[in-house]
Amino acid sequence: MVDPRQYLFPLILFLFQIVFTFLLGFHSEYKYFPASNVTDYESPSRGLVEFYYAMFTDIHVMMFIGFGFLMTFLRRYSFSSVGFNFILCAFTLEWAIILRGYLFDWDSTTQKFIVDVQSLATADFVSASILISMGALLGKVNSVQLIVMSFIEVPIQVVNEWIGLHLFCGFDPGESMYVHVFGAYFGLAATFVLFRSDFLDSPLEKSRYTSDLFAMIGSIFLFCFWPSFNAGVTTGSDRIHAVTNTYISICASVIGAFLMSSLLKKNKFDMVHVQNSTLAGGVAVGTVAGSNIGLHGAMVIGTLAGMISVLGYNFVSPRLPNIRIHDTCGVNNLHGMPGLMAGITGIIVASIGDRSGFSKHLTDTCRGGGKSRDSSTQSGFQAAALGLTLGMAIVGGLIAGMILRLPIFAQKGKDFDDEENWHLPENESKEDITRGITMARTAL
Amino acid sequence: MVDPRQYLFPLILFLFQIVFTFLLGFHSEYKYFPASNVTDYESPSRGLVEFYYAMFTDIHVMMFIGFGFLMTFLRRYSFSSVGFNFILCAFTLEWAIILRGYLFDWDSTTQKFIVDVQSLATADFVSASILISMGALLGKVNSVQLIVMSFIEVPIQVVNEWIGLHLFCGFDPGESMYVHVFGAYFGLAATFVLFRSDFLDSPLEKSRYTSDLFAMIGSIFLFCFWPSFNAGVTTGSDRIHAVTNTYISICASVIGAFLMSSLLKKNKFDMVHVQNSTLAGGVAVGTVAGSNIGLHGAMVIGTLAGMISVLGYNFVSPRLPNIRIHDTCGVNNLHGMPGLMAGITGIIVASIGDRSGFSKHLTDTCRGGGKSRDSSTQSGFQAAALGLTLGMAIVGGLIAGMILRLPIFAQKGKDFDDEENWHLPENESKEDITRGITMARTAL
Amino acid sequence: MVDPRQYLFPLILFLFQIVFTFLLGFHSEYKYFPASNVTDYESPSRGLVEFYYAMFTDIHVMMFIGFGFLMTFLRRYSFSSVGFNFILCAFTLEWAIILRGYLFDWDSTTQKFIVDVQSLATADFVSASILISMGALLGKVNSVQLIVMSFIEVPIQVVNEWIGLHLFCGFDPGESMYVHVFGAYFGLAATFVLFRSDFLDSPLEKSRYTSDLFAMIGSIFLFCFWPSFNAGVTTGSDRIHAVTNTYISICASVIGAFLMSSLLKKNKFDMVHVQNSTLAGGVAVGTVAGSNIGLHGAMVIGTLAGMISVLGYNFVSPRLPNIRIHDTCGVNNLHGMPGLMAGITGIIVASIGDRSGFSKHLTDTCRGGGKSRDSSTQSGFQAAALGLTLGMAIVGGLIAGMILRLPIFAQKGKDFDDEENWHLPENESKEDITRGITMARTAL
Repeated sequence: MVDPRQYLFPLILFLFQIVFTFLLGFHSEYKYFPASNVTDYESPSRGLVEFYYAMFTDIHVMMFIGFGFLMTFLRRYSFSSVGFNFILCAFTLEWAIILRGYLFDWDSTTQKFIVDVQSLATADFVSASILISMGALLGKVNSVQLIVMSFIEVPIQVVNEWIGLHLFCGFDPGESMYVHVFGAYFGLAATFVLFRSDFLDSPLEKSRYTSDLFAMIGSIFLFCFWPSFNAGVTTGSDRIHAVTNTYISICASVIGAFLMSSLLKKNKFDMVHVQNSTLAGGVAVGTVAGSNIGLHGAMVIGTLAGMISVLGYNFVSPRLPNIRIHDTCGVNNLHGMPGLMAGITGIIVASIGDRSGFSKHLTDTCRGGGKSRDSSTQSGFQAAALGLTLGMAIVGGLIAGMILRLPIFAQKGKDFDDEENWHLPENESKEDITRGITMARTAL
Repeated sequence: MVDPRQYLFPLILFLFQIVFTFLLGFHSEYKYFPASNVTDYESPSRGLVEFYYAMFTDIHVMMFIGFGFLMTFLRRYSFSSVGFNFILCAFTLEWAIILRGYLFDWDSTTQKFIVDVQSLATADFVSASILISMGALLGKVNSVQLIVMSFIEVPIQVVNEWIGLHLFCGFDPGESMYVHVFGAYFGLAATFVLFRSDFLDSPLEKSRYTSDLFAMIGSIFLFCFWPSFNAGVTTGSDRIHAVTNTYISICASVIGAFLMSSLLKKNKFDMVHVQNSTLAGGVAVGTVAGSNIGLHGAMVIGTLAGMISVLGYNFVSPRLPNIRIHDTCGVNNLHGMPGLMAGITGIIVASIGDRSGFSKHLTDTCRGGGKSRDSSTQSGFQAAALGLTLGMAIVGGLIAGMILRLPIFAQKGKDFDDEENWHLPENESKEDITRGITMARTAL
Repeated sequence: MVDPRQYLFPLILFLFQIVFTFLLGFHSEYKYFPASNVTDYESPSRGLVEFYYAMFTDIHVMMFIGFGFLMTFLRRYSFSSVGFNFILCAFTLEWAIILRGYLFDWDSTTQKFIVDVQSLATADFVSASILISMGALLGKVNSVQLIVMSFIEVPIQVVNEWIGLHLFCGFDPGESMYVHVFGAYFGLAATFVLFRSDFLDSPLEKSRYTSDLFAMIGSIFLFCFWPSFNAGVTTGSDRIHAVTNTYISICASVIGAFLMSSLLKKNKFDMVHVQNSTLAGGVAVGTVAGSNIGLHGAMVIGTLAGMISVLGYNFVSPRLPNIRIHDTCGVNNLHGMPGLMAGITGIIVASIGDRSGFSKHLTDTCRGGGKSRDSSTQSGFQAAALGLTLGMAIVGGLIAGMILRLPIFAQKGKDFDDEENWHLPENESKEDITRGITMARTAL
């Protein structure tokens, strides 16, 4: 007898495509500002291709190649990692363009929302959040559950960011709070609900030589393009700050991660640290990336972030199962703790006042109509934005976890195993077996 | 005794290099427009580095990484896939720069043709066509045959596109007709001539776990940079249309492909679909990418293209051998049918008139001197361009196939096997064999 | 008993991070030129993000993905190749930003050095030099030795380039002399000092099928982005020259390399040639990339470079051990000889005078205050720059080699083996062994 749930995946996606198509049809519009005057790179016209596109493609590569391959490290789950990342990200981009459109980019004249290069880039930011959550759940959920999670998580992420940016005026150009902290703790809360003790002794939850190398592709593209992520929607002097601060900070976290890895692993290195903790500097500098923190500031932030992230993998991750949390990719170490570090840095830098440059952003994004604030008020609102994000993420993740546990979604066989999800390439001919053994000797 | 044909490959390439060098020496010139006034991004000066370069490099990566790795999926043909892609593309770029130079970029004042960033990008477009044809022939031809094919195919592609653009004024910014349809049916026609029934039961014509992952690198870079391909030579409002339409359409085809794959494969996925059909939305939207089709239009095109492409892999490909066609990479499903879809969409959109924006392009590219046309005339000419392309491709491919069958070119041993073409890494030490077996157990 | 040297790596890095942080804190500054007038792409304001950033990220990818993966070709050293490349490059970037800051970018008004996008790109150039040297030493030195080498090599590279550019006014936009020649002969000199005859019969100093494919990722990204490398800091007409010349020359070297490989390998190809010699055209055209050498000039340079590089791998590399040089990656063939070729081409082109465009660069970079020179003088200074570079590289490399041999640094076990440096993924469960054998048959 055929289980009708096997049609759930195509059915859900098909229905969403239809709904999304109608929403786009009724309410979206292209926006083209003739670039008759592009001399003003201080405040370029919204979505100017020539200003935003190069950084946007970098961010796009981070989502699909970066996150996709970073997660291939599991020995028998690489197809699912890169494949599910692909479909989940594509779905999230569509959903995020629509929701952010209604909330952020509504054009009240035409009664439509704008879609331009900036919308494409910010949709990528939203998807980063969802892919981080996926990292916590990797190998333990099926493709339907991921789509459902995205459907739930995107609106919460978008609303949280809207409140943070427009009501609290909490500045966060590199999206360390609104994307990294949010995505990490949403995913961790969901995995708390979905916890099963047999996750812990799966023989498949480890890497192999080749899968670790594939993961390095993802890791290094994330590294290279992180300055574009943190500078992606900035302009003017913030842009050059964001680029240089992120470049320095993420280089520093490579060094922090390697030195701490060597220290803990007795003069050897651990691939998990090299793949992940090296990137912590990009996260940790995000909230203040556009500010004048000094390049030494970026160095300190990055070095500490790299070291803390390795300490997290070594001491925190193994203890999380005690509180029923199983974090497959260690998102707490790469996105969670470094994201909190970024949020706290933001609180501190905002309190410094003028120099931080936070106050100059009150004009453009704030419901308060750009009224000036003293720096301690701004500092308080940064803290409020961080606190709200943590709360929304955890509550949202718990709810999502409970929905994902519903029997209709939770059909699942073996964890961390591609055979559940893919028609794997197989061996057929006798000649091939013989050759296989010879090759096995040779090729490894 | 030495077979003199073993020197054919170096000999042919060497002679071509000499001829190409002289042609460039006599007839090419750099063109530098001092960008004293770059404020006009509506109609930037031809080949302006600052306007075209970022998209050009994306396209370049699509050709060499994208196509090159997408074809590595075969279990024992990955060296040849990425290596032959490399040499074939480099050769094609040189040949295309020269031929397009004479035909498209002739500067009658200096009696030389211009080479600038735009020429580099359009040469990449030509090479896409040739690499698509290679996809149909993959594993069944040797390196000499590929070079000979390119030598024959490039002039036909260039002439066809010239007629289509300059005489018919058939608009196709994403090159779906002139590149995708042309390349696919040229290759399929050639493989028709070269058909041998033993292609069908080769034990090597399948993938393995690792080769499928390498193929995903190619696939995802193609995905990420496809907006640059479709927008590569557009300007003004066409550019923002092309970027957003392609982004939406190719995301939609990811969803279409995954849902159809799941439906046909009983709640699992097939890597062939994920590697290829996910990209069909980029092809299918190409002809109208620069037009105001609405984002919902892009959604519909992309979703359908992804679904149709999977249906092609499932139902059409297995039946093609009945008509003596063996399509190694399934180019009919990724480039052929979605390209036809693009052409037909172009015919329809052109008939809509003003809104399509097709008519405004009559000025710049047309021999008719920019005379206006009513929309049904334009629609007819779009159809003519598509028909001409199909005809030129099929006739050209048949002729090419016959030439490739000539005994001087057709020396070839085992199909789909790198051992024919490469000095493969081998095993030598005893210690290595022992270690190999241990490692084989461990590493897989 | 614990060997205290096992803490050397974290200790050294930690100390450097502290020193670097203080230097940046005391002496660095962001530089932001409000782009109120960006219409002048002839001489854009220094570090203008919108002008430099897209090429900078390409260069960044070349360093981390390009060099990192190109070196993964060794069968059991891929973790170390990509991992050590990662940490070495990050360390070098920090060190290079500081040293180049003091020497090249000192702002005497503020008594600080400037850090902007151009500094980030030129730091990447310096790191290219150090990564090339690493290529010569690959598999034979530990991570501490690499950091120490970078610490020594960076100041010599920076001083040499400063003398070459500011005193000799030796023009070299693609850094073929100051980076490629320098890095190659520095590394070769160091490997001369560190030579041990047992390097020669290591069973691990060869590739395997999968590692060769990973190396192709690095190779092709280097290929695709090489035009950005050679044009990275150029402006105006030099920029379009550098892009087109490099594109043509590196395509030509693909052809030169393949034809020569086929000729020498009897109608087959060799992956070492395809991975490396294909890129020689990018190196060989570097010094004259910004000049009006004609596209046929670029063709000739590239074709010859590709052919010479293959000849080097075939005839020169196997003989280098006779003079106590063991060149793991063959940097002499990819960077050394093609770099010399570039330097010599520069001497010749400079002698041609006006047409070369070398003289117009006397203004901006020269201590002589832009005094004009006749072309034979310039030609002589180009030769002096090349000679100085060779001398500094060889002497510097010998000194570095002697320091690396000091017992405190030279703890090292087996060569070319990841087990020395990494906790490799291992096999644990019985089920896994059985599956391993089955998979070995299947997957290879």
